[in-house]
Amino acid sequence: MTRLYNDPAAFVDEATEGFVAAYPLRVRQVPGGVIRSTRSEPDTVAVVIGGGSGHYPAFAGLVGQGLAHGAAMGNLFASPSAQQIYSVARAANNGAGVLLSYGNYAGDVLHFGQARDRLINDGIPCEMVKVIDDVSSAEIDEIDKRRGIAGDLTVFKIAAAAAEAGYSLDEVVRVAEHANLRTRSFGVAFDGCTLPGADDALFHVPEGKMAVGLGIHGEPGISEQAIPSADELAELLVEKLLGELPEGVDRAEGARASVLLNGLGTIKYEELFVVYRRVNQLIEEAGITIVEPEVGELVTSLDMAGASLTLFWLDDELEKFWAAPADTPAYRKGSVTTSEQLDATELDIPDPDDLPKASSESREAAEKVLAALEATARVVEENAEEFGRIDAVAGDGDHGIGMQRGSQAALEKARELKERDAGAGSLLRIAGDAWADRAGGTSGAIWGALLHSLAMAMGDDKKPDAATIARGVEEALDNIMTFGKAKVGDKTLVDVLSPFSDTLSERVEAGDALAQAWQKAAERADEAAQATADLRPKIGRARPLAEKSLGTPDAGAVSLAMIVRAVQDVL
Amino acid sequence: MTRLYNDPAAFVDEATEGFVAAYPLRVRQVPGGVIRSTRSEPDTVAVVIGGGSGHYPAFAGLVGQGLAHGAAMGNLFASPSAQQIYSVARAANNGAGVLLSYGNYAGDVLHFGQARDRLINDGIPCEMVKVIDDVSSAEIDEIDKRRGIAGDLTVFKIAAAAAEAGYSLDEVVRVAEHANLRTRSFGVAFDGCTLPGADDALFHVPEGKMAVGLGIHGEPGISEQAIPSADELAELLVEKLLGELPEGVDRAEGARASVLLNGLGTIKYEELFVVYRRVNQLIEEAGITIVEPEVGELVTSLDMAGASLTLFWLDDELEKFWAAPADTPAYRKGSVTTSEQLDATELDIPDPDDLPKASSESREAAEKVLAALEATARVVEENAEEFGRIDAVAGDGDHGIGMQRGSQAALEKARELKERDAGAGSLLRIAGDAWADRAGGTSGAIWGALLHSLAMAMGDDKKPDAATIARGVEEALDNIMTFGKAKVGDKTLVDVLSPFSDTLSERVEAGDALAQAWQKAAERADEAAQATADLRPKIGRARPLAEKSLGTPDAGAVSLAMIVRAVQDVL
Repeated sequence: MTRLYNDPAAFVDEATEGFVAAYPLRVRQVPGGVIRSTRSEPDTVAVVIGGGSGHYPAFAGLVGQGLAHGAAMGNLFASPSAQQIYSVARAANNGAGVLLSYGNYAGDVLHFGQARDRLINDGIPCEMVKVIDDVSSAEIDEIDKRRGIAGDLTVFKIAAAAAEAGYSLDEVVRVAEHANLRTRSFGVAFDGCTLPGADDALFHVPEGKMAVGLGIHGEPGISEQAIPSADELAELLVEKLLGELPEGVDRAEGARASVLLNGLGTIKYEELFVVYRRVNQLIEEAGITIVEPEVGELVTSLDMAGASLTLFWLDDELEKFWAAPADTPAYRKGSVTTSEQLDATELDIPDPDDLPKASSESREAAEKVLAALEATARVVEENAEEFGRIDAVAGDGDHGIGMQRGSQAALEKARELKERDAGAGSLLRIAGDAWADRAGGTSGAIWGALLHSLAMAMGDDKKPDAATIARGVEEALDNIMTFGKAKVGDKTLVDVLSPFSDTLSERVEAGDALAQAWQKAAERADEAAQATADLRPKIGRARPLAEKSLGTPDAGAVSLAMIVRAVQDVL
Repeated sequence: MTRLYNDPAAFVDEATEGFVAAYPLRVRQVPGGVIRSTRSEPDTVAVVIGGGSGHYPAFAGLVGQGLAHGAAMGNLFASPSAQQIYSVARAANNGAGVLLSYGNYAGDVLHFGQARDRLINDGIPCEMVKVIDDVSSAEIDEIDKRRGIAGDLTVFKIAAAAAEAGYSLDEVVRVAEHANLRTRSFGVAFDGCTLPGADDALFHVPEGKMAVGLGIHGEPGISEQAIPSADELAELLVEKLLGELPEGVDRAEGARASVLLNGLGTIKYEELFVVYRRVNQLIEEAGITIVEPEVGELVTSLDMAGASLTLFWLDDELEKFWAAPADTPAYRKGSVTTSEQLDATELDIPDPDDLPKASSESREAAEKVLAALEATARVVEENAEEFGRIDAVAGDGDHGIGMQRGSQAALEKARELKERDAGAGSLLRIAGDAWADRAGGTSGAIWGALLHSLAMAMGDDKKPDAATIARGVEEALDNIMTFGKAKVGDKTLVDVLSPFSDTLSERVEAGDALAQAWQKAAERADEAAQATADLRPKIGRARPLAEKSLGTPDAGAVSLAMIVRAVQDVL
């Protein structure tokens, strides 16, 4: 269990502060995460990684010469917000564009995508590579759905070494994607980790059992079996990975691979070495040459008991970049030529509170946006317990607390911005960032995205009319469906947002005033929220309780319908 | 708990094999442990470290350019044998002598001391530095009694960097001792680790409590308290260490120190960073400049939950060596110039089974030595359970199993040597090494030393007479008291060996034949063993149950008396 903390809510901030204090010659804190403290070559690509905290050395421990240029650091096991990623990427940018790379999780996909939009909007070329190494999380024909686990390291390392070698952004993307497709991992778990201040672990594996393929946040595995011997575990892991060679790898032609045996927290070095002994034998017996393997803790989940094996199939280019030197807090290899320390004043750090000039109509409209956020925070406050109760049926029961934190943070930020004469668009956009930052998790990401789209439609120039609002809601829906991958019928908030948006647009087009159109749409939203009780969730959850959830509506759908209803009163 | 292993008895051997397979460009396995796989500068000092296994990266993970030249690897938490250390040191020797360095534990002190004797006997200059950084294990006026914990790293690093810089053996010893006196550590524990295959942890700390100053094998702490916040823990650790500045350190003069915050196994990185945040604040507030700190797992105890803080007070020379580059499996710093790989054929690896030529009288006498070892193994076998039962009253109950393994291994080796016509001295010496190797722990070390002394007195030239045997027993007693630090009255086997030796010498001097003198001495041994029931143990045990042990004799004393009695029948 996690025993050492002060205020659990401050855990990540304090850990970050301690981390930066320990490695001042390698990393520097910036809003949203850390960047290298050393100067990178100008006009080279910057590789910015990130994800939830709690996985050290991923992600911040991998920032430094020869590896990542920056890491956006979310809350524990929660994606960083788009603003965090954007801010780190801006500070890390060396003038030749930014590669964003991260593990394939819904919240990360959403937030990194939004951050990319903002960077491109700023004129900074930006591409993304999401790591998909976990073979247990989807079949090969749906490889894009696979999660990223310890293979994060190989993809990040290759991308960064290519950037360091002066590759263009397109070339960095090509080689990083190539590394991604040639990285395959398979893991097992024996017990879950405990978040600071929590009474119990995030999940448990039954005593004496091993969950095969279980994800690093407790995502469902593919089977459970009795804990095998170290040799049997090695055989299980190697067999699976040798059974799925990436395209282009031919063992008959003297394949070369690096091997990563990763401990997730409490499976310790000596145990890993006992397993590695057999892994090494099996891979060598298969005629594969092992190149610069790593045995240790590379991507962890606090004190989770588990281990994973990664095979990274090399070719000449990948091998060159894998062997390249690196010097980060947690990963050091070969000899780097030490670069000079950066001067803090040269950093391009966007001020998240920068306010564009707004028209007086927009500043007036901001009053209404603030009122809507007040109504939202109130209805969430009143119903948070109920949201948690519904969410607990088939989820982890944190929907209430996440919504509460998010709506409260958004309201506070909006009040402050109102004082500063923000326009309606900026007020909602920055409040939405605050929501996403504070709420964390996928629901935070989705609400952040929703408010962001709406805000972009409003802008700071005009009084937003009914058509603008309807268009903003449409764009929010598009945005969420694109990044969040949820479709209608998947038992998510999309099941409410979609009919709400359709009705709103129809009624506005038919000539209804906003309040009137909104009311009709809100009624449809209510019905749609109730109807989610008949659906089974289709999108991965920490615990797949699809059947159990039948008869209960989706918590995110219910909370959206209630908020829509509450906002109606202030229109 | 430790979950991944095959045969628990093979755990360390298999872990070593996996470790060497993972890092072939840095380490090479030799009998008794590992050495660097890279060639070192000729005529430089070799730094050979070692200790029990289960503490990775200590000790084998710290072998490589810029750090140790070799590591002797004992069984789990058990000292390597003298033969192991000797063998590693011979292979690591670069022609300018060997520094042996290790944490201050009875078994290690004994075995490294014996190894040093053998090296010097071979004409290889050898010195020792035992690390004594743990401030909780003895008061400052008994600093020599302190244990070595995470401060191992600073002492090893400084010694190795000095060796790498071409310092002479005397100079390496000087600077290593200086580093040793300027390294102070203080640790806490929340729960014990589980040995592979064991049903339960080595020890437990009560739920919600923290043991202050508890040792890395569960040695007694100084107090227990409720688990504090991370900041409070930082304050506790820093206050203690700032309260005991080493001689020559003056905070008023702008002191500089490195700081190591070490996790013992399941206290993870993020927690350590939260603690480090406050440590950093406190040390900076105290006006001390922090130089190249380390936060992570440096010296572990399998999956023990605990952490320690080390302050290493620098001066110019120490700072230069602390900052010097190193490249080992687990510790990498700065840029090393990679040396070429060693050629295996150049290694000086002593064959432990090398037999000197023996006289026919000595070969005949070897028959009797073998019979004595047979009698020993038999009496141990018959009474192992009883030894365990007695040992469990105030110890960890492993005395029976350790004696069984040791005496059996000695007997097997002796039988093999008899076939090869060994002389009495060599037969007993090599059998004694086998005992120590296989039994492990302090009792293994003591029995190895006892048989070794006796064997050296016998030699391979003459038939050992009564006076020779009596002198051999005297030397064994001296040896054990010197290295093991036990005095008469401490409730150890010394309480039996001392009167046994006295009586044997007296009677032999008075003209008794060996069998007669031995019988008298054996009677005294019996009485002395029973009398240990009235004593309290004085020497550190895993669990200080001094009071509880009153009324029960010492297991080591009882087993020695029984063996002495059993051997009488074959004289």
